[in-house]
Amino acid sequence: MPERSPVIFERLALIGVGLIGSSIARAARAQGAVRSIVATARSQATRERVRELKIADQVVETNLEAAKGADCIIVCVPVGACGAVAAEIGSVIKPGAIVSDVGSVKGAVLRDMAPHIPAHAHLVPAHPVAGTEYSGPDAGFAELFENRWCILTPPVGANEKAVAKLKAFWQRLGANVEVMDATHHDLVLAITSHLPHLIAYNIVGTAADLEAGTRSEVIKFSAGGFRDFTRIAASDPTMWRDVFLNNKEAVLEMLGRFNEDLAALTRAIRTGDGDTLFDSFARTRAIRRSIIEVGQETAEPDFGRRHSAHDPETPLPRPYASD
Amino acid sequence: MPERSPVIFERLALIGVGLIGSSIARAARAQGAVRSIVATARSQATRERVRELKIADQVVETNLEAAKGADCIIVCVPVGACGAVAAEIGSVIKPGAIVSDVGSVKGAVLRDMAPHIPAHAHLVPAHPVAGTEYSGPDAGFAELFENRWCILTPPVGANEKAVAKLKAFWQRLGANVEVMDATHHDLVLAITSHLPHLIAYNIVGTAADLEAGTRSEVIKFSAGGFRDFTRIAASDPTMWRDVFLNNKEAVLEMLGRFNEDLAALTRAIRTGDGDTLFDSFARTRAIRRSIIEVGQETAEPDFGRRHSAHDPETPLPRPYASD
Repeated sequence: MPERSPVIFERLALIGVGLIGSSIARAARAQGAVRSIVATARSQATRERVRELKIADQVVETNLEAAKGADCIIVCVPVGACGAVAAEIGSVIKPGAIVSDVGSVKGAVLRDMAPHIPAHAHLVPAHPVAGTEYSGPDAGFAELFENRWCILTPPVGANEKAVAKLKAFWQRLGANVEVMDATHHDLVLAITSHLPHLIAYNIVGTAADLEAGTRSEVIKFSAGGFRDFTRIAASDPTMWRDVFLNNKEAVLEMLGRFNEDLAALTRAIRTGDGDTLFDSFARTRAIRRSIIEVGQETAEPDFGRRHSAHDPETPLPRPYASD
Repeated sequence: MPERSPVIFERLALIGVGLIGSSIARAARAQGAVRSIVATARSQATRERVRELKIADQVVETNLEAAKGADCIIVCVPVGACGAVAAEIGSVIKPGAIVSDVGSVKGAVLRDMAPHIPAHAHLVPAHPVAGTEYSGPDAGFAELFENRWCILTPPVGANEKAVAKLKAFWQRLGANVEVMDATHHDLVLAITSHLPHLIAYNIVGTAADLEAGTRSEVIKFSAGGFRDFTRIAASDPTMWRDVFLNNKEAVLEMLGRFNEDLAALTRAIRTGDGDTLFDSFARTRAIRRSIIEVGQETAEPDFGRRHSAHDPETPLPRPYASD
């Protein structure tokens, strides 16, 4: 048996145990990345479920209890709530501890959390670019971060050892780690993640507003392309509300570009300009091919989907957290 | 051994053998739906490849040769080319033959093909709502139509027996069949298929126009949602150019609704109206759940995608036809 790598943190605290928090718990334990995990969640029901799932060594009632004595505290809550959590736990963070998060926006998180982190601790915000459309503690799994990117956005002058340690932690969980500044992160994610979610929510909403008869046909004939959009439009509404409230400028910038491009395609349709349409449609395959080549997408047709809902290998629908 | 159902057509002619044509050939043979298949394609290379694949009993050089003597002729070419094919083969269509197509737009196909079909034959346009992002004869497979819908749009006064026969054919291939008028089809598909493709092409195009440095990061961090859009944006450009040129009114109508809704979401982001964002995002899960319930989508997280490009079960990237 190969020798086990030493643990990276003695005591990991997870504040919030949804899809991401519960996946960190499972992965950290599976990889022996930490000695022990203490977890907490805002709702009694979630704390109870985390106890039943046995994915943490200890489940406590409050954020303060969780933070106390932890070497690494990862705040896994919607980005709009990160500042309040930092304010609450600031006074009990132990010297040398690393405080991080998993939010999809980094500028706002840095702005909101930094004032509450004591000088003797290290704030290193992080964003694992991974997820599924499901949420809640049951939705997590240990392999979620494998071969996915985790972006760290340490503030200027951050402690290098702390950054290196958090990097090692995420690598142990299977992720590739990149370090960049928060502003750049927010711009890149505006196009790779935030705008796609907004557009998906929007088109599914447009369909939902159709007359009832047409709406039932939308569901029936959704394999024509529409169903692809419903996946990310099934993501957690609270999380995504907070993303758009906290990355306004970058999202509006990318939305502006998107609208300009869409106006050009619309004009081409209206005027019957087939050459413009063909040229626009012919250049996008290369992007998908690149994504497949760098290992961030499957080359299987149709995402490797199985066709039938009655396929015995297909598990039953999973619960969404907010249901 | 159960008795084999009798063949539905003696001689099936396929004009065009891309993803859909080649899937029909494979499925029709696998299900014993026809006695023999004659196929042709515009390019020498495709005809050669179809011969190599041995998915047709006979591969001929011209549309005329293929159509001659066939009981059922299915034109599997981009919708903009259907009229020209009908004009070419009209004079050799045998009495009682059924002429159909597989186009994603039905009004224009009916308008363009009908004048060329002799009174002794039956034009019954069809649209199997199925596909993958790959194209060409190698991309097809016999199971493509299983549990998918095929929509027939016979003209007013169409021969009922002919419609019933084509319906039986598609059911034999595993499809559920619905009959509706062409105008209604074009409206429903505008929202379930055409608009999603336009939006996907557009957002991938917006990303492709970013500065080179940012573009490479878009590829790297595409698992945040963007990669979902690249699948349908990798669809065949000629096919989709023709769809938009031939379903202009319905697409522009749906695009108008989409833009109104997007303007409202944009305003909510700009003004920091979290309640509107939350409410919009909270109602779209129900649509996905319905699609899963009717068996048109998998409930597996992330479409059941496998994570790693290095997964030994993942086949090599498939060729796109136009490469």
